[in-house]
Amino acid sequence: METNKARFEQFSDGVFAIAITLLALELQVPELRSQQLVPAIQEIIPFLPNIVTFIISFITIAIFWINHRQLSEHITILKRRVLWANVSILLFITLIPFATKVIGSNPLHPLAIFMYSLVLFGASTSFSTVWFFVHNSTEEKQAKKIRSIVGPILYLIAALACFAHVWLAYVILFIPPMYYFLPKQEQKPITQNHSVI
Amino acid sequence: METNKARFEQFSDGVFAIAITLLALELQVPELRSQQLVPAIQEIIPFLPNIVTFIISFITIAIFWINHRQLSEHITILKRRVLWANVSILLFITLIPFATKVIGSNPLHPLAIFMYSLVLFGASTSFSTVWFFVHNSTEEKQAKKIRSIVGPILYLIAALACFAHVWLAYVILFIPPMYYFLPKQEQKPITQNHSVI
Amino acid sequence: METNKARFEQFSDGVFAIAITLLALELQVPELRSQQLVPAIQEIIPFLPNIVTFIISFITIAIFWINHRQLSEHITILKRRVLWANVSILLFITLIPFATKVIGSNPLHPLAIFMYSLVLFGASTSFSTVWFFVHNSTEEKQAKKIRSIVGPILYLIAALACFAHVWLAYVILFIPPMYYFLPKQEQKPITQNHSVI
Amino acid sequence: METNKARFEQFSDGVFAIAITLLALELQVPELRSQQLVPAIQEIIPFLPNIVTFIISFITIAIFWINHRQLSEHITILKRRVLWANVSILLFITLIPFATKVIGSNPLHPLAIFMYSLVLFGASTSFSTVWFFVHNSTEEKQAKKIRSIVGPILYLIAALACFAHVWLAYVILFIPPMYYFLPKQEQKPITQNHSVI
Repeated sequence: METNKARFEQFSDGVFAIAITLLALELQVPELRSQQLVPAIQEIIPFLPNIVTFIISFITIAIFWINHRQLSEHITILKRRVLWANVSILLFITLIPFATKVIGSNPLHPLAIFMYSLVLFGASTSFSTVWFFVHNSTEEKQAKKIRSIVGPILYLIAALACFAHVWLAYVILFIPPMYYFLPKQEQKPITQNHSVI
Repeated sequence: METNKARFEQFSDGVFAIAITLLALELQVPELRSQQLVPAIQEIIPFLPNIVTFIISFITIAIFWINHRQLSEHITILKRRVLWANVSILLFITLIPFATKVIGSNPLHPLAIFMYSLVLFGASTSFSTVWFFVHNSTEEKQAKKIRSIVGPILYLIAALACFAHVWLAYVILFIPPMYYFLPKQEQKPITQNHSVI
Repeated sequence: METNKARFEQFSDGVFAIAITLLALELQVPELRSQQLVPAIQEIIPFLPNIVTFIISFITIAIFWINHRQLSEHITILKRRVLWANVSILLFITLIPFATKVIGSNPLHPLAIFMYSLVLFGASTSFSTVWFFVHNSTEEKQAKKIRSIVGPILYLIAALACFAHVWLAYVILFIPPMYYFLPKQEQKPITQNHSVI
Repeated sequence: METNKARFEQFSDGVFAIAITLLALELQVPELRSQQLVPAIQEIIPFLPNIVTFIISFITIAIFWINHRQLSEHITILKRRVLWANVSILLFITLIPFATKVIGSNPLHPLAIFMYSLVLFGASTSFSTVWFFVHNSTEEKQAKKIRSIVGPILYLIAALACFAHVWLAYVILFIPPMYYFLPKQEQKPITQNHSVI
């Protein structure tokens, strides 16, 4: 139960890879009826929101995968609770293509964005749970506690904000990836990895 | 024929990962026509049984994967009969998304639950078969014989019970996962793994 | 170019795992309209040919995977021609779910069985090609030459036979798996593997 | 962040394997209505362009995978920019089945070929970006600079040429694979790999 980290990573990688590839499968194929260029471009315009949500979800899953990869390096013992918290991450990851499709069919409906935010809230909460299970020393927990809670809290706010205003929720959904790409953020994990390995 | 356990695990992990991810692909996307909140929520309600069966199947495949991972650690020689019993596990695992879709389209029809129970019966029977092939010593077999037979028997009872009463079958289908999550169960395999590695 | 056999196997395993899992995705979900048992069973009967072709294709892909696993153990250098013959195997493997769907929609049409046989002919020919590339010594080639040619020839005969009589083609399609499961066949590769490793 | 190349390759292999297998999933199943041979063959003819684009896309993804495999052998440190440039490769790879479906539905429409060329342009540009990140020494960069730029430039020309003439774009799309299969090309990377390993 406590060994075979290879399969843990292999299975997780499989789910991440399939979920991220299925995103593109959900894209609808435009039937280009007009042979002239300008009207044909106009036929493509309604598909643009689909492509935007596709790219956002793609980057979101990619961030989760990169973080999962980083997290996994800290795992030394695969306890049952880690396995199941990981299953919970994967459950929400597999729901991202579904939630993307819902938002693609109903781009400005508060309930669609609510569902999308809820799925990301579930994924990031599960992720933080694994993180807390894996890091045992209290110093480590203290150091990154804030960072682990930011994701879930922002997604929860987005889930609630969509009932106030749809675009407000969209803006909040953009913060976690932005936060992730901030340059300062990176320095820490790298040095930490060095000390671990 | 007897080596390369890596590919055996890789291929199995692939099938498990794809089957578990396809579950979410089968979820139907609600078309939210009403812009008001209460009627829109009412439009989602018919999709709830789908989400419940999705979660149950997800947890079921996850349990099979975790058990497969544990089982695989005991495999030292990949005999042909082990390979084929494993192919049989995978066959039934790939049928779980299909059986989930059948139950999602016909949630209260005895035949749908019969098919679902039959698929799980096939998966757990194949699993026990691999288990018996792998464990050679009679003591080990004796010690876990009961546990290996419980799953298949319960799923067989569920397959028959659905003709008596649909909800009775549902209740029986819930027992194997519950049984799995019982705290006592875990202690054994961990100590055994330790001795093996 | 000549190393990294891990990725070669990983990528192949991925394609095999996805193709075998997609087979089940193609199964159509019966809409059970009648609540009574006997008419409901009658509603399932038209789906039986689908399930039979599903199982045949599942076993066929499984045999190809098991043989591929065995073949790969003989590969020491991954030359470009081996890589591309392997891509050709995978191309035909990914076409098996498609050919199964064609045969499922048109179970007794000669052209459907012709396409199915052609796909299996392509897969087994590519497989034999890899086999010839991998085995360098003439003795080895001599010893298994007949066995490698049997598959392609039988599938070619099936492809032609379907125009004479549909059921004749079906019978011929059954021979290669049967041939594979013959007990004598196995002894050879195991001893050979031992000598290789 | 800098280690665990195994997962990097595993995740990439997963996406490549799924994208290449999904290509076949998009193939439409012909409904053979006529039982006679000649009219039945005529019913299949409209599906031929689909099969041609399937094979071209299959070979294209296979080439990208083989090159990715070769590229990955040069990676010693997985910096964040390499990870994200790789995510960008994978994004465009997952779009190939979609672009193939678009071209399959609108085989002679300039916008369809424009989208297809754009996806391949994105994939090859991302690929060259990873290549530049990975090769540090200026000599190496100098030696293969031309080769890395040829792909993106040709796909860009194809993207523009489709508005002049559809068939011109098709011809240009054929050049990169042809270029890849040229015999001379191969010698270089092999010797380079040898020196690296």
